[in-house]
Amino acid sequence: MTDLVTFGETMLRLSPPGEERLETADQYNVRAAGAESNVAVAAQRLGLDATWTSKLPDSPVGRRVASELRRHGVTVDVVWDESETSRQGTYYLEQGERPRGNDVIYDRRNASVTTAATAELPTDAIADAEGFHTTGITPALSDTLESTTADLLSVAQEAGTTTCMDLNYRSKLWEPAAARAVLTELFPAVDVLVVAERDAEVVLDRRGDAASIAAGLSDEFGFEATVVTRGSEGALAHVDGEVVEQPTFEATDAHPVGTGDSFVGGFLSQYLTGESVADALTWGAATAALKRSIPGDIAVVSPEEVRSILRGDTEAISR
Amino acid sequence: MTDLVTFGETMLRLSPPGEERLETADQYNVRAAGAESNVAVAAQRLGLDATWTSKLPDSPVGRRVASELRRHGVTVDVVWDESETSRQGTYYLEQGERPRGNDVIYDRRNASVTTAATAELPTDAIADAEGFHTTGITPALSDTLESTTADLLSVAQEAGTTTCMDLNYRSKLWEPAAARAVLTELFPAVDVLVVAERDAEVVLDRRGDAASIAAGLSDEFGFEATVVTRGSEGALAHVDGEVVEQPTFEATDAHPVGTGDSFVGGFLSQYLTGESVADALTWGAATAALKRSIPGDIAVVSPEEVRSILRGDTEAISR
Amino acid sequence: MTDLVTFGETMLRLSPPGEERLETADQYNVRAAGAESNVAVAAQRLGLDATWTSKLPDSPVGRRVASELRRHGVTVDVVWDESETSRQGTYYLEQGERPRGNDVIYDRRNASVTTAATAELPTDAIADAEGFHTTGITPALSDTLESTTADLLSVAQEAGTTTCMDLNYRSKLWEPAAARAVLTELFPAVDVLVVAERDAEVVLDRRGDAASIAAGLSDEFGFEATVVTRGSEGALAHVDGEVVEQPTFEATDAHPVGTGDSFVGGFLSQYLTGESVADALTWGAATAALKRSIPGDIAVVSPEEVRSILRGDTEAISR
Amino acid sequence: MTDLVTFGETMLRLSPPGEERLETADQYNVRAAGAESNVAVAAQRLGLDATWTSKLPDSPVGRRVASELRRHGVTVDVVWDESETSRQGTYYLEQGERPRGNDVIYDRRNASVTTAATAELPTDAIADAEGFHTTGITPALSDTLESTTADLLSVAQEAGTTTCMDLNYRSKLWEPAAARAVLTELFPAVDVLVVAERDAEVVLDRRGDAASIAAGLSDEFGFEATVVTRGSEGALAHVDGEVVEQPTFEATDAHPVGTGDSFVGGFLSQYLTGESVADALTWGAATAALKRSIPGDIAVVSPEEVRSILRGDTEAISR
Amino acid sequence: MTDLVTFGETMLRLSPPGEERLETADQYNVRAAGAESNVAVAAQRLGLDATWTSKLPDSPVGRRVASELRRHGVTVDVVWDESETSRQGTYYLEQGERPRGNDVIYDRRNASVTTAATAELPTDAIADAEGFHTTGITPALSDTLESTTADLLSVAQEAGTTTCMDLNYRSKLWEPAAARAVLTELFPAVDVLVVAERDAEVVLDRRGDAASIAAGLSDEFGFEATVVTRGSEGALAHVDGEVVEQPTFEATDAHPVGTGDSFVGGFLSQYLTGESVADALTWGAATAALKRSIPGDIAVVSPEEVRSILRGDTEAISR
Amino acid sequence: MTDLVTFGETMLRLSPPGEERLETADQYNVRAAGAESNVAVAAQRLGLDATWTSKLPDSPVGRRVASELRRHGVTVDVVWDESETSRQGTYYLEQGERPRGNDVIYDRRNASVTTAATAELPTDAIADAEGFHTTGITPALSDTLESTTADLLSVAQEAGTTTCMDLNYRSKLWEPAAARAVLTELFPAVDVLVVAERDAEVVLDRRGDAASIAAGLSDEFGFEATVVTRGSEGALAHVDGEVVEQPTFEATDAHPVGTGDSFVGGFLSQYLTGESVADALTWGAATAALKRSIPGDIAVVSPEEVRSILRGDTEAISR
Repeated sequence: MTDLVTFGETMLRLSPPGEERLETADQYNVRAAGAESNVAVAAQRLGLDATWTSKLPDSPVGRRVASELRRHGVTVDVVWDESETSRQGTYYLEQGERPRGNDVIYDRRNASVTTAATAELPTDAIADAEGFHTTGITPALSDTLESTTADLLSVAQEAGTTTCMDLNYRSKLWEPAAARAVLTELFPAVDVLVVAERDAEVVLDRRGDAASIAAGLSDEFGFEATVVTRGSEGALAHVDGEVVEQPTFEATDAHPVGTGDSFVGGFLSQYLTGESVADALTWGAATAALKRSIPGDIAVVSPEEVRSILRGDTEAISR
Repeated sequence: MTDLVTFGETMLRLSPPGEERLETADQYNVRAAGAESNVAVAAQRLGLDATWTSKLPDSPVGRRVASELRRHGVTVDVVWDESETSRQGTYYLEQGERPRGNDVIYDRRNASVTTAATAELPTDAIADAEGFHTTGITPALSDTLESTTADLLSVAQEAGTTTCMDLNYRSKLWEPAAARAVLTELFPAVDVLVVAERDAEVVLDRRGDAASIAAGLSDEFGFEATVVTRGSEGALAHVDGEVVEQPTFEATDAHPVGTGDSFVGGFLSQYLTGESVADALTWGAATAALKRSIPGDIAVVSPEEVRSILRGDTEAISR
Repeated sequence: MTDLVTFGETMLRLSPPGEERLETADQYNVRAAGAESNVAVAAQRLGLDATWTSKLPDSPVGRRVASELRRHGVTVDVVWDESETSRQGTYYLEQGERPRGNDVIYDRRNASVTTAATAELPTDAIADAEGFHTTGITPALSDTLESTTADLLSVAQEAGTTTCMDLNYRSKLWEPAAARAVLTELFPAVDVLVVAERDAEVVLDRRGDAASIAAGLSDEFGFEATVVTRGSEGALAHVDGEVVEQPTFEATDAHPVGTGDSFVGGFLSQYLTGESVADALTWGAATAALKRSIPGDIAVVSPEEVRSILRGDTEAISR
Repeated sequence: MTDLVTFGETMLRLSPPGEERLETADQYNVRAAGAESNVAVAAQRLGLDATWTSKLPDSPVGRRVASELRRHGVTVDVVWDESETSRQGTYYLEQGERPRGNDVIYDRRNASVTTAATAELPTDAIADAEGFHTTGITPALSDTLESTTADLLSVAQEAGTTTCMDLNYRSKLWEPAAARAVLTELFPAVDVLVVAERDAEVVLDRRGDAASIAAGLSDEFGFEATVVTRGSEGALAHVDGEVVEQPTFEATDAHPVGTGDSFVGGFLSQYLTGESVADALTWGAATAALKRSIPGDIAVVSPEEVRSILRGDTEAISR
Repeated sequence: MTDLVTFGETMLRLSPPGEERLETADQYNVRAAGAESNVAVAAQRLGLDATWTSKLPDSPVGRRVASELRRHGVTVDVVWDESETSRQGTYYLEQGERPRGNDVIYDRRNASVTTAATAELPTDAIADAEGFHTTGITPALSDTLESTTADLLSVAQEAGTTTCMDLNYRSKLWEPAAARAVLTELFPAVDVLVVAERDAEVVLDRRGDAASIAAGLSDEFGFEATVVTRGSEGALAHVDGEVVEQPTFEATDAHPVGTGDSFVGGFLSQYLTGESVADALTWGAATAALKRSIPGDIAVVSPEEVRSILRGDTEAISR
Repeated sequence: MTDLVTFGETMLRLSPPGEERLETADQYNVRAAGAESNVAVAAQRLGLDATWTSKLPDSPVGRRVASELRRHGVTVDVVWDESETSRQGTYYLEQGERPRGNDVIYDRRNASVTTAATAELPTDAIADAEGFHTTGITPALSDTLESTTADLLSVAQEAGTTTCMDLNYRSKLWEPAAARAVLTELFPAVDVLVVAERDAEVVLDRRGDAASIAAGLSDEFGFEATVVTRGSEGALAHVDGEVVEQPTFEATDAHPVGTGDSFVGGFLSQYLTGESVADALTWGAATAALKRSIPGDIAVVSPEEVRSILRGDTEAISR
């Protein structure tokens, strides 16, 4: 039996080596990257039995994506799109130090996943799982996906599967008002909400200290747990009327992309196996810290590495 | 003044290094690749003053394409698409020796170029040029491009600019019947037709020996010159009621992609400057042979290298 | 349920890029390579549900091996060796054209797999599978493995699982006499023997034409099928008293390592699903031909590519 | 019409990847690098129509240099040296963090450019341009270049073209006294002088605060504007009797080579189009900051990126 | 005549490029790495005539190790192991920023060097040399090596060759108590002991300030000089009853592996040529600082670079 | 004692990876390359104790050259040029299959070696050696080198050292007439002449069959042995009035640069140790064949590999 099913788009990420620019590079590094598959990989590596479901073109490029996720042990349970219009969504990522940052150019319109209908997807696996996870990106991608996301959350909710959503607002996909309208419609079927403090303000119009925001969201939408992430200031969760705080672990700034997904993967690896919210937050924070030292979107980590951080091991060279 | 204007789509070509597979590679080589810009580069390098016109997204990825063409000296006179839906067309190329071949996966639907309207394009430059070149790929890409291609050919024809079309049938874009209907509609505005023997059969339903095919096409459509290319068996041209034959020069099979475009570029570099058709065919064949030894789609050649082949220089190491 | 379980050592293969030499290279390419996992991957990619079982060190290097196999969809069901003496077997491969060939330097002594005991391994999965495959390399690696191999073949035989062995003589591991003594001891539990013509001579002391050798081996050891491979001259099988011949498909010499394993993988993908021996040989030969165009030990192929070869598709560029 | 013509040597820059050492590396990265072409590229990318003029060997190596500059849109108007003694100047650059720095080894003696005579160069283009730029490096390279530089400055001055010189003292080329003698001879034909505070002291023997130095130089030599750059402390300009100050923007130390040229390119992009000196300094400082995050000598930037810095955009990931 | 002979194991170091992980990388960088050969290279480059002695497999992989040391001018005087069981020791190194560190996985058991017997080794060269150096790693590798190390130290001592040992405790090879027992047995034949403060505590059970530890060790074991290294806090030496202190020079953290060996190499380059202990410490510290900016285990430095640090040269770009 | 001293220029060879072009590549591979050091390396690797003498700039780039030669065990006994005008000669090499060949662009004028005077060089080592080797390239490089070459040949001749010259005509360095005048002046001091059949015609004006050419040269100039190389047709030697013929061994065309030098190195490895001319030719031919499979200028070979070719071992994969 699967512990966790995640659902969403995974793109082919194309990025120039090092700090080279997209305009002048002659090679791009290729990786699979998607918020929900990032979560599945982190969770799988930390002990869960995770499945990622989506829709991919039946082509070497689509198989490239599946192949990279499988290597981490995740079960890839996808619809293979054999239609003439099938395509693999991509994004271009350019990384640079200050004053440049990390620039993202999406080329994901009309990707195969945007046509993923409920009937094609493994709803039984979702119903049988401990947890189901998606993000606020998925319903932004197409009308079909908005409706499919709602369906899958319902399937999970009715089956007693814990549902988790990371709000993950993407300003290149939609306006805050549109996001708010769609996402709050989905909230009744969500058990655990993860939201960045900044997104809570921009999309949900919540202001004030993070603890109050978490409590307010729990109250209004009836979440089992509300997790507010605050970048370098850590995270906190409101659960059962209490607030649990978790600072960040010291980490490099080298590879920030995917930090948030790694946090969620680490969190769920504990939360879904019955550990306390405090433990789940700690694993989330340690996984996120490790991720920042690892190239790509994915937390290539082991439970032992997370535990090593929790123990505070600090030797620079281990030999 | 520009000697040659070419019009068509240039894609970002993504290909794994060496003989690696798309599914398992972690890096893709990046190049600009398009039939018409390939012709422009070859012609420019061999002495013409060439301009390539098209439409590109106003993004680092679109600039990547323009940048690579400019380095060869070609003038890039494009519309920069600043719309939200702008996108850069791409294609994935996997290269392999027998029994694998070279596999192409297009991802060019809805590229910015598919919206290129006549009014946006430099019609004055076309009217002022010696020659205008496009291929049978361009009208296959969208209804807009079908109509724009017709317009630009008319502009050229009315201004006395020599018009050239390489039929270049792409079975992944359209059916033979559709291609025939659209392209024969354009033929009255074409002065020089270049067509592969196989395409003449598949698309234009011409059979028999290549010389007869060329003569038949000249007769029916009134081309100033009809060039039939025959792969390893060389090429021939029907012009002024005569047939001129040109064998291929000995060359490696290492980098076949772009051979045909290099042939056209070499041909036009002479044809448009008043050299004889025999000379033009010879330069086309020599440029094509050189291309086969050069990675990428583009003939990175010099007039001196072409002349060296014409002289039959054969020393393996020059020092 | 699993269709095929394979058992044996998979090494980390370290090879300089291109034709560089081990002595002077500053980078080595890294790949997972093992006869039995090569077979599992080819079979999985061609439609079987394949499991590879073995023993690996519980380290990033051991996980590197598992990771590469998983990406092809193979189930990796291994014992993770957490002992202090655990180690990952490796081999160095240097590739070169004539007069150099491909040179292999093994560093596989005392690898974790050499301690793999029957009790640790998934005997139930073997008993439930359609087929079980190992090679003559495995019992050469240690006394423990000799005994484990015998046990697993017995388990399979008793459960009615079809057993297959590729003789695969390795002169760097043992002498022909030792190989003969050990392997013929195992033959009674083998249903399908695959043997290179040359190994039949060197190890089993069989001479004469390949068909007679196959028939003789079937007779003496009671194999359900005996397949003799003959390099560029193809392969043949003796089954039910008849001999079926299969020539090779035209292919490059670029990447010969793994050709034999790919043949077996292609063969089993059909043989275990009830196709005729003739069909199985054809799929074996086509998979082997494809492999020779693919870097690494592994046949990164699809059923469609095999079918394309069977159809005789020959276009150099598909677009 | 061209807005800016720059004149000087551009070398082939050979540098080991990352922090590797010249002595042990097996690959060198190759780039075009020259103070004046760096300025031309930055200015062109920020909106000017820029031409770089010089002399290059008529060889693939000389074309390598021209090719890289053209890709940024700069017009390359050079003399192609076909003589037997033609050569491309090179420099070796080794980059390292503390306590190593960036080490430069010139191999530029007898490069083709050292023979560039006034009569070969496009004096009409200089006379027609808005601005002409060269540096104190050029007259240091040969007697011919000392005299050619003087001629071109005169041509510009007489035509009313604004002349700019970056003093750019290179201790590996000449002694301070020699530099002073030659450069002060050229100053009467210079409208805008850019000089590092340290060079003002070492070469021009000016001491005191930067504002006084700038004012003193303006007074003595009658510059229209005197810009003094002060490394991490920013820059200031003395113009029309007033001093305008500009701090630096926060930036990484990763790629410092070319910072000064990028500053000048950004400055001229505004100064030559009639913007205020304050605006010109701001664009110079922002372009310089961006450059420090970009590998190579060249500021691969866009006007939008400069504006983003002026607006103070600070998001680490834009998506 | 040789100035310095060093003795110990040199491994093939395999590490993923940049910050990639061992588990997911497709290429590993290859380098020769061993504490004693690191010392020999640093000393040779700084002016000594150094020989490294050991035992290597007679294979391309063994020659890979010798080849890299020779390029720095070190004389490689090794036993070439032609036995069937010969093998090259390796280690895997994964590098990462915080919270990951540098992780080392040894695969050095049963390497050829573990069988190196005194009778095979160049004892005459040791007796003729000014200095002999080994580390506490060598006797930890096998019983044979424990005894050989003792023999070679005796040979040196009897011949009047100055003997130096860097304690270099490796927790992955043995327990502190075992190390203490073996190493203190060797101390009577050691003239110069180098020991990290932390190892002095863990292995030798010394506590207190570093100066007292050094004095105490000198007293108890009769060392000519005792050097205690203290990481970022510098080093000190107790010699002739006095303590000399040396702070570190400012340096990056980028490439810490090999810092200690570089310190010893720099120290010995002066100590063995009769310079003062203070000078020797200074050269040690400067060499160590330089090493931290250089990829790999080896200090690719020159005397001029060390002197440049001693002079306090600080220019970021030298041109 | 040294067996062989070779004298000549070694350049830094810069070549784009694979078949890329110099004009468009962003990385060049770096290697040390020089006819006489190529010979020294081949001879050293095949058993001689070889020294290479020359003059190099005292810079990281000069050390790059020495470093690569040392790694093969060659003693590098060079003058380190510390003058301001010191420079490292380079050449650019572009490799391609037909119809392109291998194109060489020299940038070797004014290299440090062109100032190498007899008094600076290790004449004692030459006098003590068994053999001394140089080529017809060396005296072409400068007047100083013409005179130094003559001096060193005299030193050798007077000391009884066997002298060998490979004529090696380079048309990019001088005219045939000039070469003939200078080289025939040196012939009286040469014991063994190696000359390509084509150079014998172009430079020495010899025509007819190779055996007659060899005999004629021996007669006229009194060579102890005259070796004529004939490309793919093998080589022959005229010695003691007899002609010995040697065909080539089958080999790839992949890496032809350095074939001739490898032949000479293999030849001398036997000739100087008293083996027969027939054996020497055989080793020369086998070493040359191996070289053609090895990237770079240098024969990275072992005696065992040569012997394997002499035995006719042909297995494609050894394992």
